[in-house]
Amino acid sequence: MDKFNLPFQLFLDSKSGIRRGKLYIRGKSAKTPLFMPVATRGTVRALTPSQLKEIGFEMILSNTYHLHERPGEEIINKLGGLHKFMNWDGLILTDSGGYQVFSLSSYRKVTDDGVVFRSILDGNEILLTPEKVLEIQKKLNSDIAIFLDECPEYPCTAKREEESVKRTLKFAERSIKVERNPGQLFFGVVQGGMNFKLRQECALALLSLGVDGFAIGGLSVGEEATLTKEVLAATLEVIPDDKPRYLMGVGSDILTYVKMGIDMFDSVFPTRIARHGTAILYNKGRINISNKRFKDDESPLDVDCDCYTCRNFSRAYLRHLFVCNELLGKTLLSIHNLSVLYKIVNALNS
Amino acid sequence: MDKFNLPFQLFLDSKSGIRRGKLYIRGKSAKTPLFMPVATRGTVRALTPSQLKEIGFEMILSNTYHLHERPGEEIINKLGGLHKFMNWDGLILTDSGGYQVFSLSSYRKVTDDGVVFRSILDGNEILLTPEKVLEIQKKLNSDIAIFLDECPEYPCTAKREEESVKRTLKFAERSIKVERNPGQLFFGVVQGGMNFKLRQECALALLSLGVDGFAIGGLSVGEEATLTKEVLAATLEVIPDDKPRYLMGVGSDILTYVKMGIDMFDSVFPTRIARHGTAILYNKGRINISNKRFKDDESPLDVDCDCYTCRNFSRAYLRHLFVCNELLGKTLLSIHNLSVLYKIVNALNS
Repeated sequence: MDKFNLPFQLFLDSKSGIRRGKLYIRGKSAKTPLFMPVATRGTVRALTPSQLKEIGFEMILSNTYHLHERPGEEIINKLGGLHKFMNWDGLILTDSGGYQVFSLSSYRKVTDDGVVFRSILDGNEILLTPEKVLEIQKKLNSDIAIFLDECPEYPCTAKREEESVKRTLKFAERSIKVERNPGQLFFGVVQGGMNFKLRQECALALLSLGVDGFAIGGLSVGEEATLTKEVLAATLEVIPDDKPRYLMGVGSDILTYVKMGIDMFDSVFPTRIARHGTAILYNKGRINISNKRFKDDESPLDVDCDCYTCRNFSRAYLRHLFVCNELLGKTLLSIHNLSVLYKIVNALNS
Repeated sequence: MDKFNLPFQLFLDSKSGIRRGKLYIRGKSAKTPLFMPVATRGTVRALTPSQLKEIGFEMILSNTYHLHERPGEEIINKLGGLHKFMNWDGLILTDSGGYQVFSLSSYRKVTDDGVVFRSILDGNEILLTPEKVLEIQKKLNSDIAIFLDECPEYPCTAKREEESVKRTLKFAERSIKVERNPGQLFFGVVQGGMNFKLRQECALALLSLGVDGFAIGGLSVGEEATLTKEVLAATLEVIPDDKPRYLMGVGSDILTYVKMGIDMFDSVFPTRIARHGTAILYNKGRINISNKRFKDDESPLDVDCDCYTCRNFSRAYLRHLFVCNELLGKTLLSIHNLSVLYKIVNALNS
């Protein structure tokens, strides 16, 4: 059997109802549910690839827009693709760059042709089309590439919601025609704001186009958590079981979303707060390690964790590193926070 | 035989004349000649202890003054000493803190009692005496502690040179009376400016006090390299073969100094320049990796090196990290530069 035809194997746990699966792409695999650390510019900030491997990650996410700006996809392609460039032999998903256009650029113009905006680096105009973003992702040679979409702001009018779905689907129709790199998967993006019906129409249209998986965008953008869940539930209703579902940019409440049927997550959140001294505790909230009360605390950062950081260092030492603004502090807290995310998700997939 | 009485074993290579030895302290050992990475505040900046071990280091240096300021020796002592605090199971040498007094503080008063100066952190007056700096190092529980000395500025008058030796020896006489932690070694500091005779008198006086080893200070402070060598040669002439000799703060021209009879080195230089993008090449000078000419250079940072960085990453990737100011760049270049220093010195001790 050609494994490119079976990129996702699903095992539904009939007791818990939890989806456990495995992605098979180009001879590599990753168990789901999975959390992807974010390597914005081809590096998960402050960590070596070895440190990521040691935690257990099988897949990471990298940002097409940032890599397009620096160093540019041509250079990465010339150097053998993103895996070789950043020395990551696991799987890589790249986003479309569309989200950065909406979140980073103050000037942009969206037309049916694509998105025009100003570079955050040099102010030059950049045109991203559905074909162009896939061309870039093909040059990066990521394992999963994402279609260009339009993510409406929240809140927005019903008309905006409708327009953005229409445009997202027009982009998708053009995207699906792009020839992929051998074995590369194409995920479409489900938009539709908070409108259940639009969300379902969008998902069904993507399904009929033959996407390999579903990236669910435009959620957790400021709306109430109950609304997130309702919209998500409606969306997932129409997606067949055998298709992987990726909830974009969501790094909290993962357990809830896994139970609802999500297979893939990513978030900059655990590494970003780590660099500011905030540690996620496996069982009980967060602490900021710079706090004076830790100044002579001999205990590990998190008693419920056995990561490199928690096995080897005290809270007092980690506090000292942050008080002195030592880089090692950022590394050690990033290792811990990612380990917690890994363990939360991994407890569900094995 | 009590190994505390034989802390240093020397093997003179009769062919090359190179001193090869081994330090034995408290059941740990380190081959000499050796280079000590500098863990200023209890961390070799941007590196985990595992990464240091992987390079091969058996001994590091940490700064008494900085640790006294933050987090304070009491906290480190309460947490089980510096080894446990920073999770370093190799050997640790601590300096006396005297050098920082002279290099960092604009206000200071040196008397026969000790050194008074203002904290660089809060401006409070601090008094360091010979007894006090050893008390701190005992609380840190380093393996080798260094006596307080006075390092004269360069150039200085003959009178200044004489006075500072006199004071350094007075300090040493008080230092040797301090009871050491079990197995801890005490090194005296040889001063004397560029005056051969003073240097020799200082070394001989320390020898008669019974120090375990000789730290040679006040060299490579701006004088011509030929003068450094002459002063050093004169100093070493009077130090018996079986005593370890540590050339303080010197990280270049190591081969020359090893051939002259130096066993131990330290320098912040390889890690400091690494954090600014400068890589030391094993065989041919230095490069700054941010340079545009490396933008699509597929070759490793240094073709003559097999460290983690050179085995796994291209110059183009490392340049990208520095251009984007990514922390991983600092880590990877620090690993490389320290690996080069390690290999240069290690080629001589095995």
